[in-house]
Amino acid sequence: MRVIGILGGMGPQATLDLYQKVLQFTPATRDQDHLQVLIWSDPHIPDRTAAILYGGEDPSYALCAGTARLVKGGAECIGIPCNTAHYYLDAIRRAAAGVPVLDMIELTARSARTQLDADAVVAITATRATLATGLYNKALTLHGLKAMVPSPAEQEIIDDLIFGPRGVKAGFVDENNCRRFQAVCSRLFSSGAEAVLAACTELPLLAHAASSVLPIIDPTSVLAQALVNFGLADMAAGRGG
Amino acid sequence: MRVIGILGGMGPQATLDLYQKVLQFTPATRDQDHLQVLIWSDPHIPDRTAAILYGGEDPSYALCAGTARLVKGGAECIGIPCNTAHYYLDAIRRAAAGVPVLDMIELTARSARTQLDADAVVAITATRATLATGLYNKALTLHGLKAMVPSPAEQEIIDDLIFGPRGVKAGFVDENNCRRFQAVCSRLFSSGAEAVLAACTELPLLAHAASSVLPIIDPTSVLAQALVNFGLADMAAGRGG
Repeated sequence: MRVIGILGGMGPQATLDLYQKVLQFTPATRDQDHLQVLIWSDPHIPDRTAAILYGGEDPSYALCAGTARLVKGGAECIGIPCNTAHYYLDAIRRAAAGVPVLDMIELTARSARTQLDADAVVAITATRATLATGLYNKALTLHGLKAMVPSPAEQEIIDDLIFGPRGVKAGFVDENNCRRFQAVCSRLFSSGAEAVLAACTELPLLAHAASSVLPIIDPTSVLAQALVNFGLADMAAGRGG
Repeated sequence: MRVIGILGGMGPQATLDLYQKVLQFTPATRDQDHLQVLIWSDPHIPDRTAAILYGGEDPSYALCAGTARLVKGGAECIGIPCNTAHYYLDAIRRAAAGVPVLDMIELTARSARTQLDADAVVAITATRATLATGLYNKALTLHGLKAMVPSPAEQEIIDDLIFGPRGVKAGFVDENNCRRFQAVCSRLFSSGAEAVLAACTELPLLAHAASSVLPIIDPTSVLAQALVNFGLADMAAGRGG
């Protein structure tokens, strides 16, 4: 029996979303069928976008300290429901001291390729920092997909949906924001996107309406499924031994 | 800055509900305004109802081990989103080694009294084990309220809503179960209840429709608010120092 660890709080709503999806993807008819999960939700981790783009406080220390806390607490596999934080994945993996840390970006690109034809155009909706790191661009290309980025006007709406005074990080997971995200996705579809990658963990919270326009690839769901597979596979192995 | 600990997994949906309410009750416009939360969700803790009523495996060991894990992980205050588990509160507090463990039952009875007149009749909807412990009966009486228990037929529906093959612990948080809980609350109202205490942490998940019938007292909300107060009060003190 192995323990799932979640390095969260970036933001906390996205962590809630990951935990909810872990529960949803676990076949269970009673409490005892579910997996053991240790969540460290640390919203005080310095802003990743500010650090990457504007020289803000480096979040590495807090990310590594949180990872060490999870490992010390017994986590045997770690998922990070924040795409931008994956810029620091190497440092996080060193702090995990051998405990596997899943790469949500690689897992998502691989999952996208199973759903889409080769050379399909995937629009990346994300923070400017995630775009600047080029992580998704590289991962999608490696898996034979074509990355597309939003126009400046579309990016402004995406920023506002994530960080704005009435955005998801401010607690607004509402119909109005869902419609605004749907409108961005419609514009991306008109510009040639065949799928939209909701590549900031705040965005899948708004994706319900948009999924009627074109396929929405949700890294949080991909990560949740991978964490559940890890837990269940091990439980099955444990039964065999 | 102090860390909130949640000893959860009993069941996991109730833990998700507590975490969601902690986020909802925290005044925040960005990630960094939220509190640090450490959640140990252990759905493998032996069933509390089976232990209390039918001589099933004692959950004390797992509850105390989970508490120790939270304390070791840095939790500075602990909440337990499971009413039945409060039967083991003394043992849990010993395992917490001085870290405060909130008493959701006492907090809820106190909160109920602030909402209701003296001698108001409060119907306790809960597991049979929670009823058998008499914890809410005693707490409500101490706070000048009158406890009422459901009829055997009503209790059968409540058991089924919690533990049944299409109950909350099996993942069914749906309209049908909300209507069934509402129907139970209507019957309790007809029998003289002035409020319903949703005294199993699975039941507030079904309480939306029922709250149109009579006041529903939600221990998960009371616990979430107490945890947030703990975190914010300390942050304010920290700023002062």
